[in-house]
Amino acid sequence: MDLKEMDLKEMDLKKGRVTIPTDVDVIPETLSLIESWGADAVRDCDGTDFPPELKDVDAKIYATYYTTRKDNAWALAHPEEIQQMYVMTPFYTAESAELTVPLMKGLYKDMLTPNDRDDVARWWEVVDRTTGEVVPCARWRYEPGTKTVRIGAEPFHDYTVSFLAYIMWDPVHMYNAVTNDWKDVEHQITFDVRQPKTRAYTMERLRRFIREHPYVDVLRFTTFFHQFTLIFDEQAREKYVDWYGYSASVSPYILERFEREAGYPFRPEYIIDQGYYNGQYRVPSKEYRDFQAFQRREVAKLAREMVDITHEEGKEAMMFLGDHWIGTEPFMDEFAGIGLDAVVGSVGNGSTLRLLSDIKGVKYIEGRFLPYFFPDTFHEGGDPVKEAKVNWVTARRAILRSPIDRIGYGGYLKLAVQFPDFVEYVESVCDEFRQLYANIKGTTPYCAKKVAVLNCWGKMRAWGAHMVHHALYQKQNYSYAGIIEYLSGAPFDVRFISFEDILEDPEILDEIDVLLNIGDGDTAHTGGVWWEDPRITSAVKAFIHKGGGFIGVGEPSGHQAQGRYIQLANVLGVEKETGFTLGYDKYNWDCHSEHFILQEQKGEIDFGEGKKNMYAFEGTTVLVQREREVQLAAREFGAGRSVYISGLPYSFANSRLLYRAILWSCHAEDELRRWFSTNENVEVHAYPANHKFCVVNNTYEPQETRVYRGDGSSFGQKLGANEIVWHAL
Amino acid sequence: MDLKEMDLKEMDLKKGRVTIPTDVDVIPETLSLIESWGADAVRDCDGTDFPPELKDVDAKIYATYYTTRKDNAWALAHPEEIQQMYVMTPFYTAESAELTVPLMKGLYKDMLTPNDRDDVARWWEVVDRTTGEVVPCARWRYEPGTKTVRIGAEPFHDYTVSFLAYIMWDPVHMYNAVTNDWKDVEHQITFDVRQPKTRAYTMERLRRFIREHPYVDVLRFTTFFHQFTLIFDEQAREKYVDWYGYSASVSPYILERFEREAGYPFRPEYIIDQGYYNGQYRVPSKEYRDFQAFQRREVAKLAREMVDITHEEGKEAMMFLGDHWIGTEPFMDEFAGIGLDAVVGSVGNGSTLRLLSDIKGVKYIEGRFLPYFFPDTFHEGGDPVKEAKVNWVTARRAILRSPIDRIGYGGYLKLAVQFPDFVEYVESVCDEFRQLYANIKGTTPYCAKKVAVLNCWGKMRAWGAHMVHHALYQKQNYSYAGIIEYLSGAPFDVRFISFEDILEDPEILDEIDVLLNIGDGDTAHTGGVWWEDPRITSAVKAFIHKGGGFIGVGEPSGHQAQGRYIQLANVLGVEKETGFTLGYDKYNWDCHSEHFILQEQKGEIDFGEGKKNMYAFEGTTVLVQREREVQLAAREFGAGRSVYISGLPYSFANSRLLYRAILWSCHAEDELRRWFSTNENVEVHAYPANHKFCVVNNTYEPQETRVYRGDGSSFGQKLGANEIVWHAL
Repeated sequence: MDLKEMDLKEMDLKKGRVTIPTDVDVIPETLSLIESWGADAVRDCDGTDFPPELKDVDAKIYATYYTTRKDNAWALAHPEEIQQMYVMTPFYTAESAELTVPLMKGLYKDMLTPNDRDDVARWWEVVDRTTGEVVPCARWRYEPGTKTVRIGAEPFHDYTVSFLAYIMWDPVHMYNAVTNDWKDVEHQITFDVRQPKTRAYTMERLRRFIREHPYVDVLRFTTFFHQFTLIFDEQAREKYVDWYGYSASVSPYILERFEREAGYPFRPEYIIDQGYYNGQYRVPSKEYRDFQAFQRREVAKLAREMVDITHEEGKEAMMFLGDHWIGTEPFMDEFAGIGLDAVVGSVGNGSTLRLLSDIKGVKYIEGRFLPYFFPDTFHEGGDPVKEAKVNWVTARRAILRSPIDRIGYGGYLKLAVQFPDFVEYVESVCDEFRQLYANIKGTTPYCAKKVAVLNCWGKMRAWGAHMVHHALYQKQNYSYAGIIEYLSGAPFDVRFISFEDILEDPEILDEIDVLLNIGDGDTAHTGGVWWEDPRITSAVKAFIHKGGGFIGVGEPSGHQAQGRYIQLANVLGVEKETGFTLGYDKYNWDCHSEHFILQEQKGEIDFGEGKKNMYAFEGTTVLVQREREVQLAAREFGAGRSVYISGLPYSFANSRLLYRAILWSCHAEDELRRWFSTNENVEVHAYPANHKFCVVNNTYEPQETRVYRGDGSSFGQKLGANEIVWHAL
Repeated sequence: MDLKEMDLKEMDLKKGRVTIPTDVDVIPETLSLIESWGADAVRDCDGTDFPPELKDVDAKIYATYYTTRKDNAWALAHPEEIQQMYVMTPFYTAESAELTVPLMKGLYKDMLTPNDRDDVARWWEVVDRTTGEVVPCARWRYEPGTKTVRIGAEPFHDYTVSFLAYIMWDPVHMYNAVTNDWKDVEHQITFDVRQPKTRAYTMERLRRFIREHPYVDVLRFTTFFHQFTLIFDEQAREKYVDWYGYSASVSPYILERFEREAGYPFRPEYIIDQGYYNGQYRVPSKEYRDFQAFQRREVAKLAREMVDITHEEGKEAMMFLGDHWIGTEPFMDEFAGIGLDAVVGSVGNGSTLRLLSDIKGVKYIEGRFLPYFFPDTFHEGGDPVKEAKVNWVTARRAILRSPIDRIGYGGYLKLAVQFPDFVEYVESVCDEFRQLYANIKGTTPYCAKKVAVLNCWGKMRAWGAHMVHHALYQKQNYSYAGIIEYLSGAPFDVRFISFEDILEDPEILDEIDVLLNIGDGDTAHTGGVWWEDPRITSAVKAFIHKGGGFIGVGEPSGHQAQGRYIQLANVLGVEKETGFTLGYDKYNWDCHSEHFILQEQKGEIDFGEGKKNMYAFEGTTVLVQREREVQLAAREFGAGRSVYISGLPYSFANSRLLYRAILWSCHAEDELRRWFSTNENVEVHAYPANHKFCVVNNTYEPQETRVYRGDGSSFGQKLGANEIVWHAL
């Protein structure tokens, strides 16, 4: 029995749950797509306008609302309330007793301008990076004419200047302008809604906007107050980006309040962090965590005011999870207090899908799918269908675990409609989405096991672990992010916990079957110095000893201390050769390819970047070593088991390997063939509460497989390219 | 004009400077080799005896003298003076509040036995490796019956036991017995000559030995008092080895004296070092350096007594640089005070040759060449000629820079004589050695530049930097040791300096053209925490800024601090991506293959293990990057220049690259073609004082090249396989 035979009740499978962009020059096309895609919402975008002719269309109307920009008159009239960010110069080596540091070197001239309106002695910092000491203010001065800082220096010491700069061109606006080659566009200045005059003005401006746009149903806040960190260089190329960065959420006004709340004096270094800007790989300092918590509370409070106004004016409030989203932190407790109706965000893959779909405390969640209708994809010779397919099939795995409520697209509709095969493909996606939503919404899919990813960030960076710029590839992260991507569509109850969570409640581990620690040593992803805390190591070892599973990837628990680099070496049975143990002979190199974890592997495993210099202790079962570097190993510890993996990019073969590793680690080998496909390109998801299950082909070619039900019975299944087949349970 | 035409004066090119082994069963063979190889010395070995029939042979007679073993009667009568070593158990994780640690697990039962004769509470240490704290003695006890330590433990903490053990089978004797499959051999116990009774007995024993062997000319001490660290496992396999290790040079007797001298209480941890046993890769602690200095002084004093007796009895004293050599430290000031006549050591390559030939303060130095006449090489199907060729050609480069005075062989002569082609090849080596010695001894070869290797050990580990077990290959060291190997035969004045040397006399850098820092970050080879000392960083940066060259290999100055992993990043222009700088865009990937350093490269450069995740700053000239990981880069800094190399195993092509890198780094590009061969397989060495130069083919095939003299004039040269051709200058 497949879907066609099912009783779908009031569900309209041809209409709804889809948002499309529009513009003044695509009115007929908009109407046509509303029809063919079954769209029930239309929206404007950065650089497009909503056509008055569509005011009465049979669809919800979203209006993009720019809380922090698109009002240069205000910004220029109140320059002291332009949004600021902390910037650190590169390191400059003093070649004599005097050093001149040009602040703007390496920065896009029109984007930033140093803030010397406030007291530079208080808010800036010159640091001798050779000693780590702050240079007293008496030994440096700022020269506004040349935008340089002159420092009385120790010869051959390295210096940096941390300074506040006003954001004179909103980084997202600049990005859109540069990407689309907008000519003669006025640079939109970012203003700081947190500051008193702008705050008051913002509320009034919002109300005015709503009243001036009565036909709008949904205010799509893009976004609230603070842009993630994004800086461009002299050539307008991206210079620094951190989708999670808080550096552009500061001002003396805010920092003075933070100081009062925190109870200790603020230092620019808390944001600058040696120039690392508290990137997600840094083991976070107490001060940074304090600052984030302060921002979360303050941002939620202020955003709530805007949401209340929206509601008072009879509209829905939707937040875009991106751009100026900093401080909202959708997985943290403060978020629900904002009172939003909806969240919309960009979907790059399964992980970013769940970055949205796992959010609690809003009525609905929309995923904006790729490709964005920009000329970088929609040009002659471009292949938007391919991008759309990859995007949809990749994200679909995650939707099947934790569905979003709507899908949507953004950009210039006039570009998209020039690609009829694209229009046709998206129509099929919309239908498929509505169908699967009908089948699974509100139920909990079958979860084989409860797994938890342990790092310094826990739930705050759930699904975003290892991300730098949203879903973008990095050579240094894909071998780790691949695990998160697998988990986003895997049959597990997945949570993200932090070391602090364990300290607060060691019993948190009792709820978990398998713990994962993924990443390079001495990063926030593995934990660094946290592994020197006996409360952590004992809790984790006790968890495993009692029968828990542990999967360590890369340099799990990697931190040099007390005779170990891998702090859990006695559990994992592997250690890193740093040179310190070269004197020890290593004899354990035989590979056990018959192991349960490897039983479906065909050919060479792709460990991605892998790891060099790992070796196994006696008693460890080496599964794969290459050139005397262990890539995969397993070991028992008490009643528990651990698996070491050097790296695991996302692929279907690797997904199978990890599935088996997780089951093996918690002694669940005999549960392998439950809701299981023998063909690794095909996955099975079951929804016992709804009495349904689906078989889904993750590839772009037809597939055949044998499908195992939860009771171990099985049947053969053929699937078309990308196909999803629904069955009654 | 080649050598045949030269006036060689009293030099006999067919006789002398060669030592051969002998045994009771090879008398005619010995006499025949004395003739054909021109040997002027014969010796016994471990497991052989000197034949009385050869007492009056026309050659010096060496007798191997075992200072610390071959007298079990004494050892067994004075068990408290058997040599001891510190051993740390593996990490044991407590699974409950009681933990039992079996001391002998993983150790060869007959080699070691725990010393519970002395106060275990004072000399042993149980360490909680989870906290780093010492477990109070009240919480553990030793059970001699089972050789276990029972610990009152914190559940899931890791524990180690550091204990003293008697050496009941001398590790070298055991190695020789196992390697040669000696049956029913009595295990020779190592006794501790430093202790009072054994010390007195030793002097008397030495005198007796000499008087009982009146025909002996040279006492070949094998060696003095303390074996380098060498432990075997239960299966008699090597378990731990450190040719530089001091762990087996301890006893309560010595340690109490050390304590008094040092002025602070001794801890086992000073030797145990978290189980790393102060391996050469560890940034040495003050306490370990104090201990080494103490041992150097004490060993020199006591060795002097033995040398004095030897001299009193009319014999020469020769020391074997190996086995029980610990504490002699031939490159340190105390060494000359021993008063030795000679040093002999094994030659594995160029580096180990110079480990010998650069020793000062003795009358002559002998290199024992490979292969050793043991059945592991001299068996049916073995190819001892090949081993001998590789050994000779590899070492010859170094001899041409800093000659030893004699060459020799060891082992069972009866094995060697069964290989006539080997006997013939060695004859040619003996002749060639005598010839080159005649040509170069006492002169300083032409040195293009003065280069210094900077690490934590300085001259104490000169030529031995990166070595674990003498010249043996390690995957983790060959890419670094390759540099040392190149330098051992390169036309440079090479010194090894430590960070302390710079602190003591910053002007030490004024004498140097090019500084090298080679190895992985946070090891003694690059310096680790030393790079946090502004006196070091400023001195090094000032040196380069003034015009000095800097070559950084691997992770030079690698140590995470103040926003940098590569502490000299501003000089080298490269940094390691640890995840902390993923937010920074990297644009500098274009390779400049036209650079001076690369001008003779043909094909792919072999960087050995290379390094992952290195990237270049703007302004750095990237020479080679692979998959966006910089392998080779160059940069200017002030008047100086630096070169980054990810790794450089020893090869002729790499030697050429490094030669060019060194010259480039000190602005000496125009000195390239001085005493230079256009063919990288051929080297040229000049001896201006002797008015000679040679052209040497380092390969096993004929070569052609163009040879440049010091004045830039050149000529073509053809060479046979391995050939060395001498010219007058």
